[in-house]
Amino acid sequence: MAEEVSNKQIILKDYVEGFPKESDFMFKTSKIKLKVPDDCNHAILVKNLYLSCDPYMRSRMSKLDDNYVACFTPGSPIIGYGVSRVVDSCNPNFKKGDLIWGMTGWEDYSLIKSTEGLFKIDHTDDHVPLSYYTGILGMPGLSAYVGFYEISSPKKGETVFISAASGAVGQLVGQFAKLLGCYVVGTAGTKHKVDLLKTKFGFDDAFNYKEEADLNAALKRYFPEGIDIYFENVGGKMLDAVLLNMKLNGRIVACGMISQYNLKEGESEGVRNLFSIVAKQIRMQGFLVFHYYSLYPKFLEFMLPLIKQGKIVYVEDTAQGLETAPAALIGLFSGRNLGKQVVRVASE
Amino acid sequence: MAEEVSNKQIILKDYVEGFPKESDFMFKTSKIKLKVPDDCNHAILVKNLYLSCDPYMRSRMSKLDDNYVACFTPGSPIIGYGVSRVVDSCNPNFKKGDLIWGMTGWEDYSLIKSTEGLFKIDHTDDHVPLSYYTGILGMPGLSAYVGFYEISSPKKGETVFISAASGAVGQLVGQFAKLLGCYVVGTAGTKHKVDLLKTKFGFDDAFNYKEEADLNAALKRYFPEGIDIYFENVGGKMLDAVLLNMKLNGRIVACGMISQYNLKEGESEGVRNLFSIVAKQIRMQGFLVFHYYSLYPKFLEFMLPLIKQGKIVYVEDTAQGLETAPAALIGLFSGRNLGKQVVRVASE
Repeated sequence: MAEEVSNKQIILKDYVEGFPKESDFMFKTSKIKLKVPDDCNHAILVKNLYLSCDPYMRSRMSKLDDNYVACFTPGSPIIGYGVSRVVDSCNPNFKKGDLIWGMTGWEDYSLIKSTEGLFKIDHTDDHVPLSYYTGILGMPGLSAYVGFYEISSPKKGETVFISAASGAVGQLVGQFAKLLGCYVVGTAGTKHKVDLLKTKFGFDDAFNYKEEADLNAALKRYFPEGIDIYFENVGGKMLDAVLLNMKLNGRIVACGMISQYNLKEGESEGVRNLFSIVAKQIRMQGFLVFHYYSLYPKFLEFMLPLIKQGKIVYVEDTAQGLETAPAALIGLFSGRNLGKQVVRVASE
Repeated sequence: MAEEVSNKQIILKDYVEGFPKESDFMFKTSKIKLKVPDDCNHAILVKNLYLSCDPYMRSRMSKLDDNYVACFTPGSPIIGYGVSRVVDSCNPNFKKGDLIWGMTGWEDYSLIKSTEGLFKIDHTDDHVPLSYYTGILGMPGLSAYVGFYEISSPKKGETVFISAASGAVGQLVGQFAKLLGCYVVGTAGTKHKVDLLKTKFGFDDAFNYKEEADLNAALKRYFPEGIDIYFENVGGKMLDAVLLNMKLNGRIVACGMISQYNLKEGESEGVRNLFSIVAKQIRMQGFLVFHYYSLYPKFLEFMLPLIKQGKIVYVEDTAQGLETAPAALIGLFSGRNLGKQVVRVASE
């Protein structure tokens, strides 16, 4: 008979308006048998090792009819990207002991009924931390890759500006752009992050947007000739200032707009300088990384050697233990994290 | 000795803030010799036949350091697209009697020193009104062609929404989209224009945006499944409503934003729904038609047969005489024109 163990879960109490708070979540501990139930064909049961805190998750906390990702279910464990080990499997593609990354629950153990969008991790061959599959080798890494190489049409020598530049995606985009020979400036919200951009990630320059009363003037200082590529992670006022500083034929890759996620209906900041899109022949293009999953094998082939050779580095901010997960997730929206925010749930 | 004639000119008195008024212009009559002066190598002297009233001209009336088109010079005749006949030439590419279209002055006769961007009109072969070279066969026509065929990536069966749909560009985009087999809805600001869209231009449907208190609701009514392509001529509130109604992988062709042109600094309407660009993988792309002039011969080859076969029609609003030109130009910004606004200066 299958072992029964305790399963701690993080539950969303109700839909959230405005900034999420720790009190929007509660812990619940139940029991789970370490075996896929008989009626769950093709399901797998996993032990969660790392959970990924990602800005897009904010959207799932709201009740929206027309959301681009499914809303969380109040009263149930929230779900997100994670790295897990298969404990039991009724699916021929996964066997006990396999390591996977993809959508899982915020709990110790998860029963995953649909294995679509799960990737197996070959962890015998690479020499990278397993947590990297929540970041540089997971969804954020693929986002940086798709956004930069597939969407931004980058050319050597071009100027690149990145917001939320020390985050899970931004730090990689900057390094990709440097590898190609671009001039790269990033912005972030603390001195520590700005230092990281310049020293650790090799950005040509960086600034703290919170210290700039006039973002337009700041951008003119860092890009006197204008910006060819803007990698957009924040939206709002920053986008408005960037629009005034784009070059003719510039590209704006719209990856996220975190500055707007916690604003209530009607509070979102209006962007006033969109005529620049006409006057400068700008292409602004959004993307959803899950539509690009077919590129994952190619991406992995590209990234693993760069990591092993030390040509790309990655900074993670690791919270220890499931109890710390709500605070870690919420911290994204005040910029408390330094680099990719991940939660370590259990040892490998 | 060359004949000297009277030359009436339309002068911009000073830079304009807000909506332009007729009193922002003045008439001046001077004398001109119908001969290129000796010191004007490569210049041509033309008699202006038709002048084109185009929304982008508003931008040239403002004093802007970083304008995408050169500002007008207060005290001098304003300039714009027109159809003219060469009266005298010191340029081997043009001879007396040639018909041309391109940038000319708002006056009876113009000395054109730089002939770059001028096109010769072969008017022996075609059976179209000469005024068409200010519209369907000129800059607005090429704009519609470039925006639709080169930028919007249209496919048969897709849904297309056009603002300022009965204007110089919009009426053509809608007809191109119908030719390809798209479902086309346009919006305009009077009942007469809406009727024109449905009866004359063959749009599938059309509505008067001034009669819709809730643009989002209106768009949901006309596009229950969403919009694949939005041809953007107006900006502001309409763009905001469209963003909520775009389909996944939709394209927004940014051709102009006339609703914003007369707003003073700080008055422009903020667009709040830009996160849709991420969530729906939208590509929003601007263009400046003068960067696409190399396509003009191909465009002409495409358009002339369609016009001759009656497969594309065009509605012009013709003001008679140079005296009426300021009112005609200003009328664009209140939507007084029905179709392409042109001014007939002299007979052919």
